[in-house]
Amino acid sequence: HHHHFSHHQQTRRISVNALQPSDTFPRRHNSATKEEQSKMAESCGFDSLDSLIDATVPKSIRLNEFAFSKFDGGLTEGQMIEHMKDLASKNKVFKSFIGMGYYNTHVPPVILRNIMENPAWYTQYTPYQAEISQGRLESLLNFQTMITDLTGLPMSNASLLDEGTAAAEAMSMCNNIQKGKKKTFLIASNCHPQTIDICKTRAAGFDLEVTTVNLKDIDYSKGDVCGVLVQYPGTEGEILDYGEFIKKAHAHGVKVVMASDLLALTVLKPPGELGADIVVGSAQRFGVPMGYGGPHAAFLATSQEYKRMMPGRIIGVSVDSSGKQALRMAMQTREQHIRRDKATSNICTAQALLANMAAMFAVYHGPEGLKTIAQRVHGLAGVFAVGLKKLGVEVQDLPFFDTVKVKVSNAHAVADAAVKHGVNLRVVDGNTITVAFDETTALEDVDTLFKVFAGGKPVSFTAASLAPEVESAIPSGLTRESPYLTHPIFNTYHTEHELLRYIHRLQSKDLSLCHSMIPLGSCTMKLNATTEMMPVTWPSFTDIHPFAPTEQAQGYQEMFNNLGDLLCTITGFDSFSLQPNAGAAGEYAGLMVIRAYHLARGDHHRNVCIIPVSAHGTNPASAAMCGMKIVSVGTDAKGNINIPELRKAAETHKDNLSALMVTYPSTHGVYEEGIDEICKIIHDNGGQVYMDGANMNAQVGLTSPGWIGADVCHLNLHKTFCIPHGGGGPGMGPIGVKKHLAPFLPSHPVVPTGGIPAPANSQPLGTISAAPWGSALILPISYTYIAMMGSKGLTDASKIAILNANYMAKRLENHYPVLFRGVNGTVAHEFIIDLRGFKNTAGIEPEDVAKRLMDYGFHGPTMSWPVPGTLMIEPTESESKAELDRFCDALISIREEIAEIEKGKADVNNNVLKGAPHPPSLLMGDAWTKPYSREYAAFPAPWLRVAKFWPTTGRVDNVYGDRNLICTLQPATQVAEEQAAATA
Amino acid sequence: HHHHFSHHQQTRRISVNALQPSDTFPRRHNSATKEEQSKMAESCGFDSLDSLIDATVPKSIRLNEFAFSKFDGGLTEGQMIEHMKDLASKNKVFKSFIGMGYYNTHVPPVILRNIMENPAWYTQYTPYQAEISQGRLESLLNFQTMITDLTGLPMSNASLLDEGTAAAEAMSMCNNIQKGKKKTFLIASNCHPQTIDICKTRAAGFDLEVTTVNLKDIDYSKGDVCGVLVQYPGTEGEILDYGEFIKKAHAHGVKVVMASDLLALTVLKPPGELGADIVVGSAQRFGVPMGYGGPHAAFLATSQEYKRMMPGRIIGVSVDSSGKQALRMAMQTREQHIRRDKATSNICTAQALLANMAAMFAVYHGPEGLKTIAQRVHGLAGVFAVGLKKLGVEVQDLPFFDTVKVKVSNAHAVADAAVKHGVNLRVVDGNTITVAFDETTALEDVDTLFKVFAGGKPVSFTAASLAPEVESAIPSGLTRESPYLTHPIFNTYHTEHELLRYIHRLQSKDLSLCHSMIPLGSCTMKLNATTEMMPVTWPSFTDIHPFAPTEQAQGYQEMFNNLGDLLCTITGFDSFSLQPNAGAAGEYAGLMVIRAYHLARGDHHRNVCIIPVSAHGTNPASAAMCGMKIVSVGTDAKGNINIPELRKAAETHKDNLSALMVTYPSTHGVYEEGIDEICKIIHDNGGQVYMDGANMNAQVGLTSPGWIGADVCHLNLHKTFCIPHGGGGPGMGPIGVKKHLAPFLPSHPVVPTGGIPAPANSQPLGTISAAPWGSALILPISYTYIAMMGSKGLTDASKIAILNANYMAKRLENHYPVLFRGVNGTVAHEFIIDLRGFKNTAGIEPEDVAKRLMDYGFHGPTMSWPVPGTLMIEPTESESKAELDRFCDALISIREEIAEIEKGKADVNNNVLKGAPHPPSLLMGDAWTKPYSREYAAFPAPWLRVAKFWPTTGRVDNVYGDRNLICTLQPATQVAEEQAAATA
Ligand SMILES: Cc1ncc(COP(=O)(O)O)c(C=O)c1O
Ligand SMILES: Cc1ncc(COP(=O)(O)O)c(C=O)c1O
Ligand SMILES: O=C([O-])O
Repeated sequence: HHHHFSHHQQTRRISVNALQPSDTFPRRHNSATKEEQSKMAESCGFDSLDSLIDATVPKSIRLNEFAFSKFDGGLTEGQMIEHMKDLASKNKVFKSFIGMGYYNTHVPPVILRNIMENPAWYTQYTPYQAEISQGRLESLLNFQTMITDLTGLPMSNASLLDEGTAAAEAMSMCNNIQKGKKKTFLIASNCHPQTIDICKTRAAGFDLEVTTVNLKDIDYSKGDVCGVLVQYPGTEGEILDYGEFIKKAHAHGVKVVMASDLLALTVLKPPGELGADIVVGSAQRFGVPMGYGGPHAAFLATSQEYKRMMPGRIIGVSVDSSGKQALRMAMQTREQHIRRDKATSNICTAQALLANMAAMFAVYHGPEGLKTIAQRVHGLAGVFAVGLKKLGVEVQDLPFFDTVKVKVSNAHAVADAAVKHGVNLRVVDGNTITVAFDETTALEDVDTLFKVFAGGKPVSFTAASLAPEVESAIPSGLTRESPYLTHPIFNTYHTEHELLRYIHRLQSKDLSLCHSMIPLGSCTMKLNATTEMMPVTWPSFTDIHPFAPTEQAQGYQEMFNNLGDLLCTITGFDSFSLQPNAGAAGEYAGLMVIRAYHLARGDHHRNVCIIPVSAHGTNPASAAMCGMKIVSVGTDAKGNINIPELRKAAETHKDNLSALMVTYPSTHGVYEEGIDEICKIIHDNGGQVYMDGANMNAQVGLTSPGWIGADVCHLNLHKTFCIPHGGGGPGMGPIGVKKHLAPFLPSHPVVPTGGIPAPANSQPLGTISAAPWGSALILPISYTYIAMMGSKGLTDASKIAILNANYMAKRLENHYPVLFRGVNGTVAHEFIIDLRGFKNTAGIEPEDVAKRLMDYGFHGPTMSWPVPGTLMIEPTESESKAELDRFCDALISIREEIAEIEKGKADVNNNVLKGAPHPPSLLMGDAWTKPYSREYAAFPAPWLRVAKFWPTTGRVDNVYGDRNLICTLQPATQVAEEQAAATA
Repeated sequence: HHHHFSHHQQTRRISVNALQPSDTFPRRHNSATKEEQSKMAESCGFDSLDSLIDATVPKSIRLNEFAFSKFDGGLTEGQMIEHMKDLASKNKVFKSFIGMGYYNTHVPPVILRNIMENPAWYTQYTPYQAEISQGRLESLLNFQTMITDLTGLPMSNASLLDEGTAAAEAMSMCNNIQKGKKKTFLIASNCHPQTIDICKTRAAGFDLEVTTVNLKDIDYSKGDVCGVLVQYPGTEGEILDYGEFIKKAHAHGVKVVMASDLLALTVLKPPGELGADIVVGSAQRFGVPMGYGGPHAAFLATSQEYKRMMPGRIIGVSVDSSGKQALRMAMQTREQHIRRDKATSNICTAQALLANMAAMFAVYHGPEGLKTIAQRVHGLAGVFAVGLKKLGVEVQDLPFFDTVKVKVSNAHAVADAAVKHGVNLRVVDGNTITVAFDETTALEDVDTLFKVFAGGKPVSFTAASLAPEVESAIPSGLTRESPYLTHPIFNTYHTEHELLRYIHRLQSKDLSLCHSMIPLGSCTMKLNATTEMMPVTWPSFTDIHPFAPTEQAQGYQEMFNNLGDLLCTITGFDSFSLQPNAGAAGEYAGLMVIRAYHLARGDHHRNVCIIPVSAHGTNPASAAMCGMKIVSVGTDAKGNINIPELRKAAETHKDNLSALMVTYPSTHGVYEEGIDEICKIIHDNGGQVYMDGANMNAQVGLTSPGWIGADVCHLNLHKTFCIPHGGGGPGMGPIGVKKHLAPFLPSHPVVPTGGIPAPANSQPLGTISAAPWGSALILPISYTYIAMMGSKGLTDASKIAILNANYMAKRLENHYPVLFRGVNGTVAHEFIIDLRGFKNTAGIEPEDVAKRLMDYGFHGPTMSWPVPGTLMIEPTESESKAELDRFCDALISIREEIAEIEKGKADVNNNVLKGAPHPPSLLMGDAWTKPYSREYAAFPAPWLRVAKFWPTTGRVDNVYGDRNLICTLQPATQVAEEQAAATA
C-alpha cells in the first residue's frame, strides 16, 4: 500500500559501544579533544600527548597500573545522580535535639539558590585581587560586623574552620599574648567535648598543658595560666553570669576566651560587655545546613589590642586610586604565607562561602527578625521545661537559652524511645539528657517530646496549652540591652526581592569561573561541575546532625568508605582520615600522625622537620604548630631541592629527624627527578616523608605519593578534587597514610572515628576537627568527580593539565622567561613566568601585570610565590584551548604594553599598567588625564567588545587600609557623606 | 555552688503566637511594612491603607468574605516544601516508552542550574527592550537557527506553545495562504491524536473542515483543500518518504505541513528538502523535561515566501545607533497586538525559557553530539525490534527511527505487565503497542522490555548480545546528507566550563528582576519566590509523561484538585480548566466555551463579540479565531467603557450577541464603577461575559470576576500567580467558569479531562492544548504562592499593589500627567503617565524615555499601550518603597532632562534622551561628540555609582532590521569580518 513511499534498508551496523549511555562526563570536564591534544603536543615539540607526558613525568615514578575496584569505567552523569539518590535514601533525617554546636536552621531559599547553588558565588577565589572582588568583600565585612556586634568585641576575622579549632586558635592567641611564658590553659567543663579535645590535641605542639576544670574549682594561684575557656551558654544549656569570673581572671592576668552562640547573643548580654578577651563560636545556625558536620563558618572576635595576633583573613576598608572607599584583605603580614614558621596559626582556606551565607541570613532577618527567632526558640525550650516538670521529670534549675537539661533514670532508654519517634536526643550520661531547640522546632515537636518523656503515660496538656504559663528564663542581669546590627545593610533587605537584588548586586562585582579561567598556580581552579554540586543541597545530606547515630547516616558512611578506598588507590596509601577540613589542617594532622608515630616508638626527641625554602607558608606554620624545629633546605638553579644540602641536613639531624615536608611536583612546577632519592635519604635517617598533596593534579593516575615513597600526605579536595573555592573556602584536607601510620589517625570524642579502611588497631593522636568527618557535606563533590571520571578520565585529566601548562609555556616563552623546567624542557601542570627583569627595564612589577589582566577580563595568576617577582600559571585540564589562547593573547599583549615603556613610548610612572585596573567610573569620567586613550585602557583585546567583565574600583591602596584599620561597616551617616561626596 | 554567677528570673511571658513557625512567607513577598503602608497611604491623602482601598475599589463589588477551605492561614516556606515533598512522593516515576511527542531527556545539569533554576534567566521579560536583552535574543536566534537547520526551511519563529497548537497555527497559515478560499484541511492519520484534535477544535472558528485521512486515500480532486498535515516520523513510528506525496499535493495547489521530530531530523532528510511548506514540532526532547505535559517550546518553520504570515515572535538581526550588529524582535506588525481582529493567531506569551534550554542543548552537544544521541536511540530501537522478532513477536515492517510498532494478542495485558516492571508503553489498540526509545534508555531497559514481551518465557539473549546483528533501519534515500548546526556557536561550547561561561556571558547582557523592578503595566512582574520555583525541578515532577496512567501521578492530581478549588474561591467560579497554556490560549478556550454553550442551546447564530477599543490585542484576535464578529465600543474621557455605546451595541446585536470581553480593572488602570451594569446589559441581551483576568492582581481577595458578574475568565498565572515570565514564556492561562459553562470545558483525546471540580455532566468543546493539563510542571509555582500567602496574604498583596501604584502616581503627578483615575482620584494597581505633550515641546516620544530609563538601570514600563504616547506603570506588591522611590526619582530626573530641551538648553535632536541608551563602548570611546557629558550620560543618579547595569548596545534600529530581514545566525566568516571591523 505504501509503494509511493519508497525506502531501502541500509546496512550500517550498530556497535554495542554506541549503545552505551551518552551522558558521559570526562569530555565535559577535560577540555581538549583528541585532535587538539595532538596539535597542542606538536606545538610543544612532541609527536603525541603521551610522549609529552613520558618526557615530563620521570619514568622511575610512573605507575604501572591504575584501576579502581569500583567506578573504574566512570559513571555517566545520570548514573551518578542515581547512585547519589540511592545513598541519600540510606540517610535518615531525624529531628535533632542534640545541640552541641549544631542546630537545624531554615536556609532562606533565596540564599540557598542564589549563593549556595550559584556558581557565580561558589567558584570565586579568595579575594586577594580586591578590585574584582568587592562583592564578597562587602559580604565578608557584613560577616565581621555581625560578629563584632553580637559578641560585643570590636575585631572579627572573616571566618575560621569550626568552633573547636577556633577555640584552639584562641588558646594559641592566649599563649602568644602571654609571650609563651604561662603554659597552662584551662577549659571549663561546660564546653563542648569536641572543643575540649581539639584544644587538648592542639596544646601538645605549643607545649601547653590543658586542664579541664569545674568553674568553681579554678585556681590561678600558680600564676602559670595563660587563659581560660568558658562556654556561654554551656554545652548542657546553662547560662552563667561570667562577669565576676572574668574580673577575677583578669586580676590574675589570665585571658578569658568565651565560646558562644550567635542566636543566644541576640538576647544575652554580649561577652564583650562581660569583659571577655576573645569570643569564638560557629555561625552555622545562621542559615547554614548542619551537613553532618560541615562546612560552616566559625568566628573569632577580640579587642583592638590583640588584632595583630588574630588568625585568619580579615577584611578591611581602604581607598582606591581615585580615593573612593574600597575593600580588601587587611594585615596580610600576619598570615602564614608571610610569617611561615613564625606563624602561630596555619589557617589558609577558611569558610568564606558559609560566612557569606550566615551574613546574608542576618541581612535577611535583620536584628528584629533574629531576636524573634531567638525568643521563639527560647520560648519552645521554656514550654518544654514547664511540661517536663508537670510530667514529674527533673529539669535542671539553671537559666537556659535553648537547651534544657533533664535527669532521668535511664537516659539511653529515653533516647531509644525518642528515636522511635524520629527524634534524636543527647545522652550526657546514664541519667542525663539534654534537649536543644532550634529555629525549625514546631510546637508539635514539643508534643512529641512530651510523649517520649511521659513514657507511655497520657499527657494531659499540649505545648500550645502550656505557652501562657511560661516565662523567659533569661536572668535580667544577662538580658541583652545594647543594640546590634544597626547598619542599614541589616535593616533594608528583608523582602525576597530586596535580598535577591542585593545578592546579585554584590555578585556582579566579582569575577568567578563563570567569567573566565582563573589560572592560579597551586590553587587548581578547575571545573566544579553541576552534577558534583547537586547532592550537596539535597536535604538527606544537609539535614543530618554530625552526632546522629551512624545507623541514620548509612548513605554517608557508605560514601566515606567508598571514598576512602578510591583515595587510597589514587594516592597509593593504606588508610585515610576524612577529618581535616582544609589543606593546612591536613598538614597539621599529618605531622601530628608522624609525631604520634615517633612517640609510640619512644622517639620523643624526633622533632626536626626539614622543609624546602620553596614550600608553601602553611608547611612551616603547621610544623611549628606541632612543636617541630624547622630546618630549611634550599633549591638549585633549576628549582629542584638541593639534594646534597638535604642529605647534609638529614644526616646532621638524624637522631632528631622527624619529617621532611615536600610538595610534588615541586611548587616550582617541576617533577624533580631526585624525588625517590630524597625520600630514601629521609627514611635512611629515621624520618618520615610528608607530602603536600596540593599538586596532586599533576599526579593522579601517573604516579602517587605512596608509590613515590611518601608516608603521609594531605589532599586539598578543593583543588584536585573539584570542591569549589567558595571565595576562600570551604575546603577539605583529608590525609592518607601508609599502613604503619594508620593507627594514629585522628578520632573524635563523641563519635569515635579512625582510618578508612580501618587499621587493625588504633592509637589516635587526638581530635583535629569539631566534626568526626570534617565537612562531610562537600565530600559528595570529590566523590562524584572521581566516580564519574573513572581511572582513565582522571589520568587523562592529569595529562591534559600538563599539556595545557606546556602549551601555554610554549606560547609565552618568546615573550616572558619561563623560570623552571624539567630535564626534558617541559613543565608540570603549572609554570612560572619571570617578571623580575621588567622592574629595571620598565618599572613594572607583578602586581601591575595582575591588575592589567583585569582589564582583559582575567584574574591574575599566583603572584610572587613561590618566587618573588614572578607569576605562576596553572591552567588545569578544564580550560579549553580557546581559553588558554585568550589568556596567552592577553599576556602577550601586556608584554607589548611593557615594551612601549621600555622603548620610552609610554611613561614609566603613568602608563596603562600602572593605571590598571580601569573601572567604568574612571573610563567614563568627563576628565581624562591619562597619556593613553580610554579605548586602549578599556578594550585592549577584541573579545572584550563582545562581553567584558568590569572591575568596580581602581587599584586598591593596601598600605592606607592597614594604616587606617577599619574592619567593620562604617556608620550609615559616614557612608552617606562619602557617597554624596563621590557623586557631588 | 554557682553563687558567683548571679541570675534573676524575668517575668516576661511567652505567647503561643510567638511560638508559631517563623519562616512565614507574606512578609517576604509583600514589600511594605505596616509602618510604610500608613506612611504611603498618608502621602496619597488617606489615613490608612484600608481607606485608600475603600476609596478605590467600588463598594458594590467588594467581597464580604474571602477564605480558603485549605491553606487559609498560609503555610510557612518550610511547611510548603514538606507539603510539596509529600505530593512529590505520590508521583511515581516510571520509565516511559509512550512517545507521542514526549520523551525523557538528560537535561544537562549546567543548563538546569544556570538557566532553568536561575532567576537571572527565568525572571526576564519578553525582549521588547532589545538593548538590555541581547543575551536571550542571541539564544533565541540560536533556537531559530537550530530549527531552520534541522527542518531545512529558512524561517523559524522563536517558539510556540506546543506541537499541537503549532500544527493548528500551520493549518491557519494554509488557510491564509489560500486566502480563505479552500476550506478543507486534511490530516494524515499518522499524526499524534492530540494534534489531530487540536486542529479539529481550532478549525471550527476558521470555518475549515478538517478530515483525518489515510495517506493512500487522499483525493484533491475537489480543489477545496488548502493544506495537508503529515507526520514524519509517524505517531506509530514509521518513516515514510513524502517526496512524491508533496509533489502531488503541490501539483494540486495544496500546501504541505509536516509535523516532525528534531532528534530524528539529525539523521533524516529534512522536510525542507522533501519540499514541505511548513514544519512544526516540539523541541522538548532537546533537554527540556517532560513535566507531565509542559512547558516545552514548539517550533514552526517555513519558507521566505510565507514569513509575514508566521505566527509568534521572531528574532532578527539589525544594527544599533553605532552601526554595530544588534538583535531585536522582527516584523512586529504581524503580531496580534498590532493586527488585533485582523490577526490570524493570538499567540503572545510563548515558551522562550524552554526555547533557550533547547537551543543550549544543541549548543552543548553540537551537530556530532546530537547525531550520536540520535543514532544511539535508533540503535536501541533496532535492537529491540530484532529481539522481538526473535521472541516471535510481530514487528511492523516499515522503517522507523525511535518507535517500534508491535502486534500482540492482548495489548492491555502486555502494558499491564510492563507497568509491573516500572515501564509504561503505548497501547494503540487492543492488538497494537508502540515502544518509543529516547536518550535516557539503557541497554538494560531493553532487556526489561524483552522480559515483558517474552511473557514469562526465558529470553536467551541480551540487548547487548544482539547489537552486532542490528542494522540501521533508515532508508538510504531518507538519510540526512546535508550539514546542520555548522555555525561556530554550535561547535565551540562542548565542555561544561565553556557552556557555563557562554550562558553567563549572555546572561550578563540582560536585565531581569535580579537587577531592578520591571514595572510593565498589564504584565505584573512580581516576585517569583525561590520556594515557589524549587519543586519545578524535582524529578518526581519533571520526569512524568503526560499520558502516563493517572494512578502514577496522584501527587499532580491532588495538586490540580486543590488548585482548582483555590482558584474557584479566588475567582468566584465553579469550575476550572488547567489546560490552556498561555493567557491568549485561555481567552480562546474561554470564548470557545461560550460558543459551545450557545451551540448547545441551539443558538448557532450568536457570534457577535463586543470588545472595548482599549482591550489587549489578544482579545480581538482570540475572538476572531473563534469565528466571532467583533464589535468595538469606545471609552469615555475617564477611560471607562462608554456605557451608552455598549448598551446600543448590545441591543443592536441582541439576537446574535455571543459575548463581551472586558478587562477588569480596565486596561486604563481604573476600577470602572459601571462594571455590574455592563455585565447586566450583556446578560440581558443574551450574551455571556468574558473577563480577561490579566489584571487579577488588583482583584484577589477584594472582589472577583464571578462576584462581579462574569461567566468565564482566564488567569495569567504568569502574572498574578507568580510564574516567572522566562523572557517570553512559559505561562499558563487556565480558565474558570460559572456552573452553566462547566460542561463545555476542554477535554483531551488521550487522557480525558474536564472541569475541576468536575461538573455533573460534560460536553467538552474539544481540545485546546497538546497536554491534558497544559504546562503542568509550572503549576506548583502558583499553587505554592497561593498556599503560602493564604487568604489574608493574598488580599494584602492586592491592597499593597494598589497602594504602590497610587504612591507612585502621587509622586509622579507633579511631573507627568496621570491619564486616568477612578471616581475618588485614585488609580488601580497600575497607571498611565501621559507623554504626548513632549512630542511638541521637546520632540520626545515614549521610546526615548524608555531607552533613557536603561541608563538609570531600569526596564521601561509598557509603552504606548493601551494609549499611544503613554507609559503604563505597574509596580506590584513585591517592590519596596525604596525601589519605587528609585524608579520615581529616575522618571523625575528624566522629566528634568526633558525640561532642558523644552528650555532650549539641550538640542532637540541630539540630547541625552535621543542618545539613550549609552553602552560602555560608546561612553568609553575615544571620540565623544555628544553635546552632553559622558558622566551625565552614564551616571545620572547616585545609586548608579554603587552598581550599574550596562546596556550592551546603542539604540537598535527596528526599521533597518525589518528591511534587511535576517532571522538566523550569520555564517562565521561574516561575523568574523564584522568583529574585525568593529575592533579595527
Ligand atoms: C602547596 C600548598 N600547600 C598547602 C596549602 C594550604 O591549603 P589550604 O588553603 O586548604 O589550607 C596550599 C594552598 O594554597 C598550597 O598551595
Ligand atoms: C490584558 C491582557 N490580556 C491578555 C494577555 C495575553 O496573555 P498571554 O501573553 O499569556 O497570552 C495579556 C498579556 O500581556 C494582557 O496584558
Ligand atoms: O507581551 C505581552 O505580555 O503583552
